[in-house]
Amino acid sequence: MHDHPRDACGVVGLYNVPQAAPLAALGLHALQHRGQEAAGIAVCNEGKLLCHKGMGLVSTVFAGGVADLPGSSAVGHVRYSTAGGSCPANAQPILARYSGGEVALAHNGNLAAARRLSYALAATGALFQTTTDSELFLHRLAQEHAHTDEEIAVMLAHMGPAFSVVMLFAGRLIAARDPYGFRPLVMGRLGDGYVVASETCAFDQMGAAFTREVLPGEMVVIDDRGERSFTFDTAPHARCLLELIYFARPDSLVFGETPHILRRRSGALLAKEHPADADIVVAIPDSGASAASGYAEAMGLPLDRGLIRNHYVGRSFIAPGQEARTAAVRMKHNVVREVVRGKRVVLVDDSLIRGTTTATLGKDLRAAGAREVHLRVACPPTRHPCIYGVDFPRREELLAHRFSLEEIRARLNMDSLGYLSMQGLLASMENNGGCCTACWTGEYPVPEG
Amino acid sequence: MHDHPRDACGVVGLYNVPQAAPLAALGLHALQHRGQEAAGIAVCNEGKLLCHKGMGLVSTVFAGGVADLPGSSAVGHVRYSTAGGSCPANAQPILARYSGGEVALAHNGNLAAARRLSYALAATGALFQTTTDSELFLHRLAQEHAHTDEEIAVMLAHMGPAFSVVMLFAGRLIAARDPYGFRPLVMGRLGDGYVVASETCAFDQMGAAFTREVLPGEMVVIDDRGERSFTFDTAPHARCLLELIYFARPDSLVFGETPHILRRRSGALLAKEHPADADIVVAIPDSGASAASGYAEAMGLPLDRGLIRNHYVGRSFIAPGQEARTAAVRMKHNVVREVVRGKRVVLVDDSLIRGTTTATLGKDLRAAGAREVHLRVACPPTRHPCIYGVDFPRREELLAHRFSLEEIRARLNMDSLGYLSMQGLLASMENNGGCCTACWTGEYPVPEG
Amino acid sequence: MHDHPRDACGVVGLYNVPQAAPLAALGLHALQHRGQEAAGIAVCNEGKLLCHKGMGLVSTVFAGGVADLPGSSAVGHVRYSTAGGSCPANAQPILARYSGGEVALAHNGNLAAARRLSYALAATGALFQTTTDSELFLHRLAQEHAHTDEEIAVMLAHMGPAFSVVMLFAGRLIAARDPYGFRPLVMGRLGDGYVVASETCAFDQMGAAFTREVLPGEMVVIDDRGERSFTFDTAPHARCLLELIYFARPDSLVFGETPHILRRRSGALLAKEHPADADIVVAIPDSGASAASGYAEAMGLPLDRGLIRNHYVGRSFIAPGQEARTAAVRMKHNVVREVVRGKRVVLVDDSLIRGTTTATLGKDLRAAGAREVHLRVACPPTRHPCIYGVDFPRREELLAHRFSLEEIRARLNMDSLGYLSMQGLLASMENNGGCCTACWTGEYPVPEG
Amino acid sequence: MHDHPRDACGVVGLYNVPQAAPLAALGLHALQHRGQEAAGIAVCNEGKLLCHKGMGLVSTVFAGGVADLPGSSAVGHVRYSTAGGSCPANAQPILARYSGGEVALAHNGNLAAARRLSYALAATGALFQTTTDSELFLHRLAQEHAHTDEEIAVMLAHMGPAFSVVMLFAGRLIAARDPYGFRPLVMGRLGDGYVVASETCAFDQMGAAFTREVLPGEMVVIDDRGERSFTFDTAPHARCLLELIYFARPDSLVFGETPHILRRRSGALLAKEHPADADIVVAIPDSGASAASGYAEAMGLPLDRGLIRNHYVGRSFIAPGQEARTAAVRMKHNVVREVVRGKRVVLVDDSLIRGTTTATLGKDLRAAGAREVHLRVACPPTRHPCIYGVDFPRREELLAHRFSLEEIRARLNMDSLGYLSMQGLLASMENNGGCCTACWTGEYPVPEG
Repeated sequence: MHDHPRDACGVVGLYNVPQAAPLAALGLHALQHRGQEAAGIAVCNEGKLLCHKGMGLVSTVFAGGVADLPGSSAVGHVRYSTAGGSCPANAQPILARYSGGEVALAHNGNLAAARRLSYALAATGALFQTTTDSELFLHRLAQEHAHTDEEIAVMLAHMGPAFSVVMLFAGRLIAARDPYGFRPLVMGRLGDGYVVASETCAFDQMGAAFTREVLPGEMVVIDDRGERSFTFDTAPHARCLLELIYFARPDSLVFGETPHILRRRSGALLAKEHPADADIVVAIPDSGASAASGYAEAMGLPLDRGLIRNHYVGRSFIAPGQEARTAAVRMKHNVVREVVRGKRVVLVDDSLIRGTTTATLGKDLRAAGAREVHLRVACPPTRHPCIYGVDFPRREELLAHRFSLEEIRARLNMDSLGYLSMQGLLASMENNGGCCTACWTGEYPVPEG
Repeated sequence: MHDHPRDACGVVGLYNVPQAAPLAALGLHALQHRGQEAAGIAVCNEGKLLCHKGMGLVSTVFAGGVADLPGSSAVGHVRYSTAGGSCPANAQPILARYSGGEVALAHNGNLAAARRLSYALAATGALFQTTTDSELFLHRLAQEHAHTDEEIAVMLAHMGPAFSVVMLFAGRLIAARDPYGFRPLVMGRLGDGYVVASETCAFDQMGAAFTREVLPGEMVVIDDRGERSFTFDTAPHARCLLELIYFARPDSLVFGETPHILRRRSGALLAKEHPADADIVVAIPDSGASAASGYAEAMGLPLDRGLIRNHYVGRSFIAPGQEARTAAVRMKHNVVREVVRGKRVVLVDDSLIRGTTTATLGKDLRAAGAREVHLRVACPPTRHPCIYGVDFPRREELLAHRFSLEEIRARLNMDSLGYLSMQGLLASMENNGGCCTACWTGEYPVPEG
Repeated sequence: MHDHPRDACGVVGLYNVPQAAPLAALGLHALQHRGQEAAGIAVCNEGKLLCHKGMGLVSTVFAGGVADLPGSSAVGHVRYSTAGGSCPANAQPILARYSGGEVALAHNGNLAAARRLSYALAATGALFQTTTDSELFLHRLAQEHAHTDEEIAVMLAHMGPAFSVVMLFAGRLIAARDPYGFRPLVMGRLGDGYVVASETCAFDQMGAAFTREVLPGEMVVIDDRGERSFTFDTAPHARCLLELIYFARPDSLVFGETPHILRRRSGALLAKEHPADADIVVAIPDSGASAASGYAEAMGLPLDRGLIRNHYVGRSFIAPGQEARTAAVRMKHNVVREVVRGKRVVLVDDSLIRGTTTATLGKDLRAAGAREVHLRVACPPTRHPCIYGVDFPRREELLAHRFSLEEIRARLNMDSLGYLSMQGLLASMENNGGCCTACWTGEYPVPEG
Repeated sequence: MHDHPRDACGVVGLYNVPQAAPLAALGLHALQHRGQEAAGIAVCNEGKLLCHKGMGLVSTVFAGGVADLPGSSAVGHVRYSTAGGSCPANAQPILARYSGGEVALAHNGNLAAARRLSYALAATGALFQTTTDSELFLHRLAQEHAHTDEEIAVMLAHMGPAFSVVMLFAGRLIAARDPYGFRPLVMGRLGDGYVVASETCAFDQMGAAFTREVLPGEMVVIDDRGERSFTFDTAPHARCLLELIYFARPDSLVFGETPHILRRRSGALLAKEHPADADIVVAIPDSGASAASGYAEAMGLPLDRGLIRNHYVGRSFIAPGQEARTAAVRMKHNVVREVVRGKRVVLVDDSLIRGTTTATLGKDLRAAGAREVHLRVACPPTRHPCIYGVDFPRREELLAHRFSLEEIRARLNMDSLGYLSMQGLLASMENNGGCCTACWTGEYPVPEG
């Protein structure tokens, strides 16, 4: 899925932590891979909420520091546009006031029932000022005059999936995860205070200690009296496997799994399912790195750096002319000729969505002298869009929706093509109960609307 | 050397290439790893030179495009501050006029004789408007009224090392390399036109074909009549090994070597010289990746991703408080606990300069459960500063200058420490004649001043 | 009132005008004197509303042009922070959705009943996302499901003063003025289309022709069928005299009066009430210019430019040191020594609020050699804050609230001091029925809350 | 000359003044009317020169303050592009090093002999890095190794007019004015320190006291021993009358004259030479304000504000369409209908260069109901370009060069037209000896080249 923005959204929350804002910024920085479009932090200072947000990376939005955000509690967000267009008004946290006072909210996920909730709220006189479904939480708060913990829990029980959400009130931090558990959310401690985040890598960055996951259907309330837990609903679990396969940083702990370990295992199983008669294994960096190492080890083949990634983001200086345009696709990856020349190469990636870049890399590898190129994908063919918050292309753009496997192989000009089976993918997990596989199987745990 | 800005400078030149500026920008983007402080491009349009330069990445400086830079010849530069402070006036190319007309210059390297040249020029009435030694070339041009190819060649013969320089005149592009050949410079063809660049990865990006190196002591002149070569001086070659070990992109062709291949080989030789009784090999990403794979293969040990690098640049949101500060050092790398827990780890990097980050990573690895940590460095102990253009810390900051190997091991809290020998490093090369080893041996091929 | 930001807010609306956005920007530019803090424009394009707004002058916010705002209808706003803090979220127009579709609103004025309205709305479940009272209009729209013209008129009837408001819906532009008529609002035609604005100077800038005022208590609806009018409420008129005295541009037509003419007349009456035995009349530029010319003419005294205003805005380069600080107050005005030396000077201004700058100018005039300085103010002593949208200092900062006239004269070190009487001010008008004089008399036409 | 950028350049210098940079910024702010294109300040701190400059207003360039410019001596510049294109490299002060050390230079004026000086310098091996003639001073310093006061005075004697120049060395400030005295330069004291500036309004802003003019042909040197004066050359004086007529601020003291007083007098003489049978006098604001008041007083006619100027700078939001374009010319001035309706108007301006705006204003006045419009210009017909530093249009664009007076009257659609005679203009001065009248008479005191 290297040809696709690797983004969902990321959230952090802190309570009773001195200098909450700079730590929140550090945490968001560690979650930057989950969203590069916008970033924001809200804090509570002397009973009043303050918010600073904007378009761009965390380091851009907070280039001037966070001195305008004093206080010991905070909520933060990095965003990729899962719902709602790309505009400043849609950046989060969303800061609002209602009968219960001020609240700032950060949301990861997509509400499958957004349209229905939105209609109902409009009928009660709601005034929408963003185009995100995240705003719906706040309108329900206001509409139901949900002030107490219990009232807020009831509100959450009616939102439907998918959400991992953090809300900051004056004197109270609330973190909750929908009962299906689509999106991750973890808890930890930092000194005397509390932290929550989308992934544990945020804790490592902040110097916090992971304690446990926020459970599906659980709402955790943190205030000066400490932490308490509410189960607002239950449902069959449907944890998003894409989180493990490519969203999460390899070093995070997500759904109890370490993505790097799971991906290595998936590579090994892929080797068993689809061995290749080849000389070397090459990962598409950085997305295929873990799976490729598992594949190579299982096959007993050398893993080498046949592709180098340019981590600087290029843009804007591509001219209309032909030569410049062909050059443009090479802005992210480049072939190491000496590694692949004369070799039969197995190219490994974590997923295959549109296939645009893979096609180019295949061509480049052959131009550099590779004798054969075999593509191995560490998940099943992706045929169905996600309605729970993964920013997928439309169904018609999904390569595996449009073409048979043989057609895909031919279009990408590969000597062979192998996808990991659904059961192979599940077997890569430590604990594979309760996962959402909709984008591969089309079996959606909860319908849209 | 991961704890150190990985920068020299990078240059490109194009002649008779339609849309030269966007292609120059693409080439500079591919050379971005050589300098992130400033970037610039000058073009020749209808006999007049135009220049656009500024502080920041290529994508920042040319965020508004290159429409203000029409023409089919160009010279470009990315800069790290090797000499002269960090200020806009010192960005390159430098555009100037003299009796021979307009000229734009881009320079990679450091003139060891800068002080002497500068005094002599001041005595003749030169007026300096930057604090870079690159300006000296232009003053010599002006002072000597060097207009013809031959006169310019004579000028270059008196500059001393180190330089790889590209000069754009109205109707003429000149590329030259000092007779010692400290810094790389390569030539290629793009359609009917000509290109030069610091590394071949710029050609891959532009879609140009590598033809050959500009030779040490050679000045290549390109104009509408084609290309011609002048040998302005000869000297024992002294190619900078750091270019191969860590400046150059792994996929470039530099001094006839592919850095990735050389680094793999150096890792294998390091294994032979300093084997380790361990369970896994972990690279410091991305600097140690190639050497680590060579080490692992030679040792028959698994290579795994025990450290993950955050490619987003964090800054500015670090608060003065203690917790935030400790967090700051973890902004670039994070440990994958599951990989290293209970393991005896060999940590491999390409070099060891100040040791600051390495010390932190060692601590982090142990905190994550590594039983032992053995450090292996794929070059000899770095004890002497560079006077030819590598942005080294002062001598007193060089770890190996201050401490014995045992002291270093103890300070970094490693179970063992091994550096590749000088002869091991040279053995990693295809062709190891004529290299500069001054930063390890203290034997400077040309004195300063 | 030259020592005080001369700002309220300004609004424009356009319907059925090709290239509405650039014309809206021109209109806002002409209204820039009414608010320099923020600016914004919303347009309707293909049934969808789009908004661009930001902090700063019109020329700053739209420095990149208005190409992102296509369409033939628009609403625009320039803002000074009458209510709600200074932050991007409070810029207008406010764009929102409710059961009646999308709407963009621009509001000039302050709702005296804001607190009560806000409490009532919170009780019905409203979610507030700005801290401006302007948002209340939209919540009422949403709460009452006000879709038809008649429903919207009913909504407006319950808001209380003060407002001149323009609302853009898909396919409909609505302009309304509270029944007291505190703030101005004028209508005009531009080609086949319609325009509304706070002052006629916006029409002159856009090339539109003034037709008439929007009447107090009138709501004008413009759509593809043309224009229609609703009277939603009546009340005794209470037009803000400060609009005439110093907000409005001298060349505008406001409440049927030309401010320059009115101010000249007020100056003449001031001369009658408070003649001065002096040599020359000097205006505080530009605020006192019109009144001073009336005063000079009535007195038969020469009017001369004894003070020059620097129209460039200085800021940020004032150092903490004493010398710089004294210099800072001279950044806006400077004395022409040759004009005032040895003269008995009458200094004329339109109003006197805090008196800070007047005190400095008095001192500067004497330092430049003026023998006597007599201050004449073309309105009564300002003793009461405004609750209808004029950004006044707090009561305690009002000079005339704190001190007697003799104390003021002494504090400002004037030889004499004269304020125009209330009846003199009213006599300056063509038609002086139905004016608000609260800031001078304390008689508030409508109570707060 | 209201249709023309009212700009030359402005310079300031400070020596032995604590916090020199913020005061220099204040001084430049007061001189902002002399150049809005670029601004810069250089200081000397601990023997080292530092410079900060950029494009835009003083308040823009120093929006971030001047904390990076410590020290008690400074030189500053505001620039309009008199020579050299509009680009950052041409901003001043120019900072350079030569055999005499570091120097920063700020120059007001245009070197009539620039071309000749430039050729000669190129022949000696000079390297030009800007396209301004100001750089020539520095090259001559370097070429002649001018280190001592006397050597620098000799250098200045060979530059030819026109210049008022300030140079900052480590430990020395030098201010000089060409022997013809084309451009103004004044001296003053601030505490124990010294200041120089283009106009005295900079002193008023800084809180400094004017002492005297730097004399034509005088070089003043200020260092820790105090002030000393050198007369480097003599010539018949040729003070630029445009400085008095429209460059200088009305409140400055320039060439011993107060511009406002001189302009009033010129208006009175204009009334004598060209009376008009009219009802009111209207100034084109702000350029014609002083002359108009003199004209009105002499004629016994009322002076009224028939035109209002919008001081906010509009740009960028003008669309291509016709309606927007017609609107664009009204962005600066607007007619007050009530003042001019039914009146015979005398329109007064300080000069008439291209006539574009005047034509539009004439049309606007008639459209607003003026019965007659009579144009009076307070200087002779401008027929010749300036070669001494006034940014004039090319000869072909000068209205009075192309057309007879009757043709001009007809083209501008005026009922009558009157220019002040040369002798009338000279009679407006206190001391009219030694003035340059080249732009009216074509008699250039010094030839170009």
